[in-house]
Amino acid sequence: MKDSDWSGFFADAAALNPDAYIILDYYLECIGDPRIAAAHFCSEQSTAQWRRVGSSEDLRPRFAARVVDLTVLESGRPGFSYGIAHSQGGDVQACRVTIAHPHGNFGPRLPNLLSAVCGEGTFFSPGAPVVKLLDIHLPDAYLAEFEGPRFGVEGLRDLLQVYDRPLFFGVIKPNIGLPPEAFSDLGYQSWLGGLDIAKDDEMLGDTEWCPLARRSELLGAARQRAEQATGCPKFYLANITDEVERLIDLHDIAVANGANALLINAMPVGLSAVRMLRRHARVPLIAHFPFIAPFSRLPNFGVHSRVFAKLQRLAGFDAIIMPGFGERMHSSDDEVRENVAACLAPMGAIKPSLPVPGGSDWAGTLKGVYDKVGTIDFGFVPGRGVFGHPMGPRGGAASIRQAWDAIVAGVSLGEQAAKHVELRAAIETFGRNDIAPPDEAAGKCTGDES
Amino acid sequence: MKDSDWSGFFADAAALNPDAYIILDYYLECIGDPRIAAAHFCSEQSTAQWRRVGSSEDLRPRFAARVVDLTVLESGRPGFSYGIAHSQGGDVQACRVTIAHPHGNFGPRLPNLLSAVCGEGTFFSPGAPVVKLLDIHLPDAYLAEFEGPRFGVEGLRDLLQVYDRPLFFGVIKPNIGLPPEAFSDLGYQSWLGGLDIAKDDEMLGDTEWCPLARRSELLGAARQRAEQATGCPKFYLANITDEVERLIDLHDIAVANGANALLINAMPVGLSAVRMLRRHARVPLIAHFPFIAPFSRLPNFGVHSRVFAKLQRLAGFDAIIMPGFGERMHSSDDEVRENVAACLAPMGAIKPSLPVPGGSDWAGTLKGVYDKVGTIDFGFVPGRGVFGHPMGPRGGAASIRQAWDAIVAGVSLGEQAAKHVELRAAIETFGRNDIAPPDEAAGKCTGDES
Repeated sequence: MKDSDWSGFFADAAALNPDAYIILDYYLECIGDPRIAAAHFCSEQSTAQWRRVGSSEDLRPRFAARVVDLTVLESGRPGFSYGIAHSQGGDVQACRVTIAHPHGNFGPRLPNLLSAVCGEGTFFSPGAPVVKLLDIHLPDAYLAEFEGPRFGVEGLRDLLQVYDRPLFFGVIKPNIGLPPEAFSDLGYQSWLGGLDIAKDDEMLGDTEWCPLARRSELLGAARQRAEQATGCPKFYLANITDEVERLIDLHDIAVANGANALLINAMPVGLSAVRMLRRHARVPLIAHFPFIAPFSRLPNFGVHSRVFAKLQRLAGFDAIIMPGFGERMHSSDDEVRENVAACLAPMGAIKPSLPVPGGSDWAGTLKGVYDKVGTIDFGFVPGRGVFGHPMGPRGGAASIRQAWDAIVAGVSLGEQAAKHVELRAAIETFGRNDIAPPDEAAGKCTGDES
Repeated sequence: MKDSDWSGFFADAAALNPDAYIILDYYLECIGDPRIAAAHFCSEQSTAQWRRVGSSEDLRPRFAARVVDLTVLESGRPGFSYGIAHSQGGDVQACRVTIAHPHGNFGPRLPNLLSAVCGEGTFFSPGAPVVKLLDIHLPDAYLAEFEGPRFGVEGLRDLLQVYDRPLFFGVIKPNIGLPPEAFSDLGYQSWLGGLDIAKDDEMLGDTEWCPLARRSELLGAARQRAEQATGCPKFYLANITDEVERLIDLHDIAVANGANALLINAMPVGLSAVRMLRRHARVPLIAHFPFIAPFSRLPNFGVHSRVFAKLQRLAGFDAIIMPGFGERMHSSDDEVRENVAACLAPMGAIKPSLPVPGGSDWAGTLKGVYDKVGTIDFGFVPGRGVFGHPMGPRGGAASIRQAWDAIVAGVSLGEQAAKHVELRAAIETFGRNDIAPPDEAAGKCTGDES
């Protein structure tokens, strides 16, 4: 690229119509002049050849992605991160580059948006093999083309009639292998103990040994009995993750049978299929997080998880289960908080999604999560912390509610446990120290608890 | 986990019913005893809690994923690859672990398969933050539940009546920004020059400035004129990448208007949505590769690209465009060949998909690609190598065919160029050295060629 070429891929942000561009933040390692690398990066993302042979046309003014900010973070590195090799000579520069990409190139379509911002142009730009999409900012004019969550945080609270605390989820365990009858009894017990939402594991689909139709029928009936017994609305969150072709039918079957919220593994099913389901769905849609870590875990390569938190919200999820705090989930506290913010921060007319940071939780981890999230607008989602409790799921759920009551009353967990046998048993089982996750507590909460 | 617990996640492969298990190869870095880490890994993938509290049941015999092979590649590493931190004490072991996972846990459903083999259980197993799914082997009993490609390699050859050479694709450029009229003229010229398949760029969807309906109408008519002029069948490969809800309609519109093959960005749209489209589609489906590199580029983390080559074939793609040879595509020759093999190797009753390794190709790179692939069953897909040719796309396409003729005749490119002006011009434009890709050749093939 000549000077006169690459300058066409730069712009002053103030001179661009903000409604017409999405703004993208990237980390980029490149060889040679970072301005030329950044210009190539924009060219590859948009109009890689901007005129026909023999023509003097220039497609860049309307169609080019443009560099609007470029900061060299580190120059003269001896090589790329992660041992990525490149035979081209020259020092490596690590940069932060902000790009304005004209969304008219692809329109309000999730697959086309993904292709533009983390597709071939992003990951195969010459001389720049190490790249991470850090964040995405969508103008209101673009957001207005999306529906977003039907219920959102307020809608979920209205359905459950819970306004003054986090929402308490629980993953029914054993997650795989139980027939519907045994499985539904566990859910019933957990609602009686105080869960708002008993949910299928993300691995439990519509299987022959636990068909969704029968499972949702039994859990739906159990939910209604639990609502009568407790006087509180409850959700049975049924996992309808399946082939796209079956999503609408499974929605209809599960909801007709008594499921009143639906779980979808967002990335395995695909965000666009979720958007399709959202237009049809009459109950809240909840996202689970398989297949995000493989491209988000490394700090300098791939795509930051908050980009997908935003896109899951855009696709229409009312709540987003995400890797939470604690070492096992391999997400820094900052990353979890960024994902929480991606769910709750203003986003045009798109409603907030409830963030549900999860991973190895039990009664003893609730205060830590609450303190780190800094709001009651979150979901708490133990698995074995409820369903591996020695007194069973009713006791396990009760221990969670007791832990919350302690937070509200400002008393210590120990003090509260002296008055509540379920919480005491939880601490004895899961609480090597007050925050030891169940699965790392010397096998106490494996299948061998009995 | 106690000894008696983790042994339940091991098995002798010969003792398992091969029809009932998929086989998974992983690279895994873990802290402590790798046998216990591998058992945890299986537990997290399948039945993480294998009995109810107070019960003596054991769900593992039917539902547990099992370690069938474990090899320690390197023990006593001071830490994890890629600087991933972990506070748990102990040396790190790098292992190769082979797992038999009972597919009855989830059934013949792509989203559920993905959730099982590269979901939460895989990437959040305690003490094992560095993992890569290297390969997947599906038994015939499982494969039999999938349709795979409708046409496959033989079907594509029958439609094009080309049996003795690679299939020649070309990406119409400028890829973004031209109206349908100008765009279709470029496609027409490229067919006259000898391309089999003129295609939309993966970034070009159904936009207001180049609507798919109008584009496919014009390209469809141009294709028919080119077929009459040349006496050879041609494909116009229209990109229908869009929201899942629109795929069927866009198929119908594009095909009715004259497109006779369809491009879909596999991962952005979602493999399951492609499987749905496959059941409806009446023309070949071709995959493009955005959003695979972010999780496949690093050797020891994420998912190997061949897993997704296999799954794209399973979803029903007749051809799979993939990152090809050459440094810009950041894939080793071995990785490209593994992906080619994933397309062509026997796979139950699933037809082969045509592999199309691409990236910065032109006439001068054809012999290298052919030699490395080792078969004529591949597609060759230049972009600027055809559409940035100084004599226009007709000359660019001719230069590709001339390069192939040289290979067949066993003459050098230089010798052939002496007789063919189009090939000579290609070498002058793109051939700094015989394999310089167009976009790294000092801007000669950017928008500024004129």
